Amino acid sequence: MKVVVIGGSGIIGTAVTRELSARHEVIIGGKRSTDLKLDITDSTSVSEFFKNLGRVDAIVTTTGNLHFGPIEETTAEQFNIGLQDKLLGQIRVALIGQHYLSDGGSITLTSGIVADEPIRHGTNATTVNAAVEGFVRSAAIDLPRGIRINAISPTYVNESAGVYGPFFPGYESVPAAKVALAYRRSIEGPQTGRVYHVWH
Amino acid sequence: MKVVVIGGSGIIGTAVTRELSARHEVIIGGKRSTDLKLDITDSTSVSEFFKNLGRVDAIVTTTGNLHFGPIEETTAEQFNIGLQDKLLGQIRVALIGQHYLSDGGSITLTSGIVADEPIRHGTNATTVNAAVEGFVRSAAIDLPRGIRINAISPTYVNESAGVYGPFFPGYESVPAAKVALAYRRSIEGPQTGRVYHVWH
Repeated sequence: MKVVVIGGSGIIGTAVTRELSARHEVIIGGKRSTDLKLDITDSTSVSEFFKNLGRVDAIVTTTGNLHFGPIEETTAEQFNIGLQDKLLGQIRVALIGQHYLSDGGSITLTSGIVADEPIRHGTNATTVNAAVEGFVRSAAIDLPRGIRINAISPTYVNESAGVYGPFFPGYESVPAAKVALAYRRSIEGPQTGRVYHVWH
Repeated sequence: MKVVVIGGSGIIGTAVTRELSARHEVIIGGKRSTDLKLDITDSTSVSEFFKNLGRVDAIVTTTGNLHFGPIEETTAEQFNIGLQDKLLGQIRVALIGQHYLSDGGSITLTSGIVADEPIRHGTNATTVNAAVEGFVRSAAIDLPRGIRINAISPTYVNESAGVYGPFFPGYESVPAAKVALAYRRSIEGPQTGRVYHVWH
């Protein structure tokens, strides 16, 4: 399969690329050091990206920014960061990318454990991740040509425990390589409309 | 209690106002024929609204636009309609309104049955409603001063069955007055972080 991993140079994206590369042609997309650059918040950039890429069999996104902060200090404008970046950014990739997918191809987006398990100062993250899962649930019944769509909901990974650990007291972390298996399951498996939880 | 119902001149808002008026002072806010006008997509408008209103004990929103259409024809810009209106609009009311709530006051937002039960051409609606519920789940643990927050997830109502019925084959509709009871439960009850489903 020809697979594009957008955010493929991040910690999870790198693990996904490593997991898939033995069996598939993997192209890495992202803002920085990647095979092909794109900005997921810009429709022209995403359209150009897919035009250059041509037909693909699987689209994966492992990227997106969020806002963190106490709700008493959060403005609607700050809240919109996550809506425009991790949420609409991934949805934009799905909406534009669907037209470049082969029949029966797949889209795999990234949500996160805070969709279900809110953390302090994480309203934007919970909202955005819950929305990503809602999109997957509904897009699965609306996508044509046997195109599948799933989301992966990871806990925080060992590789970034130094940064994120303090925000997840009592949560387990997992190796990024374990999270990558869920992406493989979504891409190579038969299911659609699923959220794969990798929480421990 | 002093209660503000934003969207209070809509079908559900009218029923909520009728349910609450016997026991509370109810102020209706909205774009059109209301006690006080506001545009939930505009932070300045929402701030002015609450400044004019002063301290309140309960904030209710029963309003917000969405985009409907087949996913193959949906653009990111169309998708953003629901994100900016029903989603960020209600969240903006919560983020600004929290500062005008009395201790132990409440916020009640509106999601919808399609959060859990997707309908055709409804990806924007499912995404937005799931996000509203995520916001409520996370804001409930982050709001200070005993402020509570819940969402009501109604099915379509008898009063709008002529318009929405065809999109909900096999779904039950309910009277708007029954949906209004869930808002009363959220406002007068003790719970927080809840989604009250009124699906039959």
